[in-house]
This record gives sequence, structure tokens and C-alpha cells, in this order.
Amino acid sequence: MHTASDPKSIDDTLPTAVQDVLATYLAAKRAQLTAAEPSAGDAVDALADFVLGGGKRIRPTFAWWGWRGAGGAADGAEAEKVLTAISALELIQGCALVHDDLMDDSALRRGKPTVHVDFAGRHRAAGWHGDPDKFGAAAAILIGDLALAWADDLFTEAGLTAAQLLAAGPAWRGMRAEMLAGQYLDVLTQSDGGAPLPPAEAAMRVARLKTAAYTVERPLHLGAALAGAGERTVGALRAFGGDIGVAFQLRDDLLGMFGDTAVTGKPAGDDLREGKRTLLIAVAVTNAEQAGRDATVEMIHEALGNPKLSADDLDRVREALVDLGAVAEVEARIERLTGTALEALASAELAAPAGDRLAALADAATRRSY
Amino acid sequence: MHTASDPKSIDDTLPTAVQDVLATYLAAKRAQLTAAEPSAGDAVDALADFVLGGGKRIRPTFAWWGWRGAGGAADGAEAEKVLTAISALELIQGCALVHDDLMDDSALRRGKPTVHVDFAGRHRAAGWHGDPDKFGAAAAILIGDLALAWADDLFTEAGLTAAQLLAAGPAWRGMRAEMLAGQYLDVLTQSDGGAPLPPAEAAMRVARLKTAAYTVERPLHLGAALAGAGERTVGALRAFGGDIGVAFQLRDDLLGMFGDTAVTGKPAGDDLREGKRTLLIAVAVTNAEQAGRDATVEMIHEALGNPKLSADDLDRVREALVDLGAVAEVEARIERLTGTALEALASAELAAPAGDRLAALADAATRRSY
Repeated sequence: MHTASDPKSIDDTLPTAVQDVLATYLAAKRAQLTAAEPSAGDAVDALADFVLGGGKRIRPTFAWWGWRGAGGAADGAEAEKVLTAISALELIQGCALVHDDLMDDSALRRGKPTVHVDFAGRHRAAGWHGDPDKFGAAAAILIGDLALAWADDLFTEAGLTAAQLLAAGPAWRGMRAEMLAGQYLDVLTQSDGGAPLPPAEAAMRVARLKTAAYTVERPLHLGAALAGAGERTVGALRAFGGDIGVAFQLRDDLLGMFGDTAVTGKPAGDDLREGKRTLLIAVAVTNAEQAGRDATVEMIHEALGNPKLSADDLDRVREALVDLGAVAEVEARIERLTGTALEALASAELAAPAGDRLAALADAATRRSY
Repeated sequence: MHTASDPKSIDDTLPTAVQDVLATYLAAKRAQLTAAEPSAGDAVDALADFVLGGGKRIRPTFAWWGWRGAGGAADGAEAEKVLTAISALELIQGCALVHDDLMDDSALRRGKPTVHVDFAGRHRAAGWHGDPDKFGAAAAILIGDLALAWADDLFTEAGLTAAQLLAAGPAWRGMRAEMLAGQYLDVLTQSDGGAPLPPAEAAMRVARLKTAAYTVERPLHLGAALAGAGERTVGALRAFGGDIGVAFQLRDDLLGMFGDTAVTGKPAGDDLREGKRTLLIAVAVTNAEQAGRDATVEMIHEALGNPKLSADDLDRVREALVDLGAVAEVEARIERLTGTALEALASAELAAPAGDRLAALADAATRRSY
């Protein structure tokens, strides 16, 4: 429970309030589980470090403004219960990231070793039996599973009413399944460059599921449903969330190629080095093909997924993306999506200050910063 | 929903009834998810094949007899809802097995390729980009996650009352966390032969969590809680389930070394080849050490985890296990545990025919068959 004596309302302290809920909950779950089996303590600690160690709490933030916009209270007992329930989104995200890091075999997350790398290191350092990497993978699989199970526990234990649980069911269930379907499509798309979807469509679908549905649309839906919102409000919020979520992903793709590392926190070009098939790349390749610029198509394909891409190579790809009109096309899409999103938001007639706060979040997520 | 026109009650048709619930539910979830993203169809189909392709439905069976023993009805609308809810245990087990096969890198499950091997094969056959094994691992991680998320969905969508959901919460939450803690301890124990637990204690703890708690005790607890059982009944059922579950695991360990392949369905000695640190092995090593039989200790350690163990080597280990009194000690433990389990069962004063049916399940699970 969020029991801060802070006079500010949850509206202004949400990330901290979510952090408090998660810290308290994970400590209670740790005590319960280690009473059954002490060795689980290390696994729970790793999960707690991971979940409490960062993140902007973006999913609970959207869920909160869905709740507030549909008339939910800013404070009091009911608001605290909703805060607790939506904090569970961070545990789903914990599962998604721990498993994603394993699937991608990423070594670092937020500058620290990923969970599977951490546990492989513990195995290696202790000189245990067997393969350290296999042990690390097993630990990451189980820790991610635990996060997913505990997300459901936190949501159902938050003290919501039976009516709230019923109303929130479709959003809660849709979100988890769509996240996993988005991950699967992403893996599939990265494995299977050509078939079965045109690259631009595949990129848009991954963005719709992984970013828009899972990160914005369903959290808004969830929060609004908890406040008993009707179909019209839910529909308008979902339309806003879907479009702004895709716009957010497209902005992220542009920043991944052109962003200032000091601002974005990750080296420019990393998406390219990792072979991420973004809309930006798909549009560039299509435009180059249509213009008969075979050498440019080849250059982009060679850069995509090349971990040793040089700064000069990266610059050449950047120039091509601008030159081929791909950057302009993606910018135009962001602008269109932001426009339709804000129209939907206005039509939702949300309780103040949710409309202004969501518009500000939309602006921050889609604004150019390079 | 189980809507069979079969005149027999669920008491006599449980595995089929569970199968029907799962088939109907997975088909509905498939339709929903593929409407959001068509490519998820293959992943859902693989999960459905896996979950519907076998298994004795042992967890729903224990849950059902917990429900019936605590006074729950054998048929009617309420019974159908409980049947639906406890079928969710098979989806948890689906997650556990798909992830376990990946962690162990097992190639076969019930004579068919495991999920990660299946998807790696699809990648290889289609000649997709990247590493087929990495793709197979990613698919298995995501399919297991989906099973875990859908287990919660099925349980909460079963139509249980708010009072039932509240009463069943501790069993449902405990079961999932204890299963994962058991898996983690198992992985830890197999990696770290010596420290930090004495091998016999580690083996018993894994048996308590992975088999007893997850497979018997918590399902019984869950079913009884759904029927509104009081503390005394729940306590007696859990005591029964805990002891019979461990006895079941110890019998399984003996069958794994001495069982007839035609009966057990798996080659004798496979546990040994896989390096499984059972109580049987722990007792044998301890007894050999205490008797100063260093060569025997060494022989057992060399056999443990040796995938190329010959039939003669296996026979020598078997002889040693008998000779060292380990078989007799494990048999004695099974007998003691079965005795205390049946005493607890008798004290539970269950509604007929649950007591007789659970006693029969206990007998079948712990009976010698080699």
C-alpha cells in the first residue's frame, strides 16, 4: 500500500507511489516464499532489484490517467487500491524484459548485467557443476515466470471490488496476450526477413501490439474500466492510446537512428546493429527498390544486423534514410497519428486534469528531440 | 464449459471433462488473439497440441476430490464452474513443462519433439534468418508465458463467486510460487552438488515443493477452499497431500531406477543419466561414505549425469543401491509417509466418496510396480 504522508496527491507522485507499492509487495511475497523455501530468496531479490531498479512507470501512468479521466478519485481508499492494482503492470513488464533480454541474449540492461548474465556469472564465480549459461538461462526463465504470476497476484489482491475485477478483465487479459503475441511477431519478423508480411506492415503490427496496445492503449483501457467507464469513453481512450502508442514507437525508431546518445541514453544506430526491422527501414528499402537504387538497398541490408557497423557506415545509412524520403514519411505518419490521437482524446470528454495530462504525455512521447 | 450429454457424473469422467474445458477455452482464446494478430495462431496451436496431447490430469483430479470431499456437488452449474476453474491447473503445468524442457534442453516429450525443438525445426526447414535454436528457445519462452497468463485467465473467468475467488486465493498463489521455487531449487541443486544443503535434504525439499505442494497438496487445498472448507478440513487434506506427494515422488525415483520400461514409459536409469539428485542417490552416497566404501561413492558419482551410461554400469549402480540399504530406506520412508497420509485423510472426515477415491489415488501413486 502507498502510505506516504506526502501531502501531494497521487497525480503528482505516481512513479514514487508505484515504487512504494512494488517494494512493499515484493518484500511481503519474499517473506512468504522463503518461509516455504529459503533458497528462493536469491531469485526474488534479483527480481526485486530488477523491478525496483528503474523504469519510468509509463504503463501505470497511462492506467492512472485512464482511471482519473473516467472519473476515478485522486486519493482516498479506492484510489489507493487502484494504484496497487495498476502497479502490477510493472511486474508484467519485469517478466517481458527479463525474458526478452534472454531471447535477445542482451548482456546489459540499464547499464547492469541482465538477469541471465548475472546468474551465469554467479555460477561461474562459485565454480558450480554444469554449464553456467544454462544455469543463467534457467534462472531468468523462472524469475520471469515468477514476475508474471505475481503480477496476477498483485492485481487480484489489490482489494478491487468484484465489479471492478469483472470490468477490468478484458483489458487485463488482452494486454498480456497482446504483449506476448507482439513479442512473438517481433521474433518471427526478425527471423524471416521476406515472407509472409510486407516489412512495413510487419513493423506497424509489432508497433501496434508491443508498444501501442501493451504500453498505452490497454493500460488506459484498464484504468478507465476500473472507474466504470462506458463504451464511448473506453473507445475514445483506446483510439487515442493506439495512435499515440504507434507514434511513440515511430519516434523511438527515429531517435534510435538519429538521436543524441546523451538524451536517449543509448548509442545511435543500435537498433540497426541489432537488426531491428522498423518502419523507417522498411520504407527506405521500399523507396530505394522503387527508385531502382539497388546499391542502396544492398547497403541497408548489409548494415541491418551487423554488430560491427562503423560510424561511417552508420552515417551513410542515415543519409540514405533522409535522401530516400523515409525520415519525412515517418515524420508525416507521426504527425498524422498524433493528430488523430488528440482528436480522439478531445472526444473522450475526460474529467480534469486527465485530458491535459494525457495531451502532455502524448507531446512528450512524440516530440522531435534531435 | 463441460457440456457433455454423458449421463455419468464428473466424478467418473474427470480427465475427459477437463480435456473438453481446455479444448473449448483454447479455441476461444485462439479466435480472440488471432483477431488481434494472425501470426499468433501457430504459437497457440503449438500450446493447444501440447496441453491437449496428453497428461493424466492429476492436478485437476486432486483439486476435484478436494472440492467433493469438502462437500462440493458432483454436478450442476456450480460443479461445472469449479471444473472449469481447476482445469486451469493444466495450463500452469503446460508452462512448467514447456519451460522445463527448454531449461533441460530435452528433445522429446511424450514421444514428440519438445516445443523449442519443434520451433527450431520449423525455422531450419524454412531456411529463415538467424539461429534456429535461438528462435526455438524464444518461441518456447513465449508459449510458456502465454500458458501461465491463460491459466490465470481461465481461473478468473470460470464464473466462480467473489467469495470462492477470495477463499481459493492462498492455494492458487501458493501453488504457482511453490512450483517455481521448486524448479529453481532443483536447478540450483543439480548445479551445485555439494553446498549449501545436504543432498538428502535438498532432494526432500525439491520433492516437497515440486511434487507434493504443486501436484497434490495445493490442488487439494484449492478444491476444498472452493467448497468453503474450514481450517480443520483444509489442514487434514494438506497434510495428506504433502505426505502422499512426497511418497509419490520417492516411488517415482525408485521406478526411475528399477521400473519396467513397458510400465513406466521411460527407460530405466534415465534419472541417473540426467544427473537427477534423488533421495535414493543421496542416501546411497551417505551410507557408502559412512561405510568407508570410497570406490562405491566414486562409481555413483561417475554414473550420475553420464549420458552414455552402459547397461552394465546401470546394473552395478542398482546393485549398490540395494546393497547399501538405500532402496530399503526409501521404501520404509514411502511406507511411513503413506501411513501418516492415510491417517490425515481419515481425520479429514470427507464427504463420500472422496475419502475412498483419494485413498485409491494414494495407493496407485505409491504402490510398488517392479
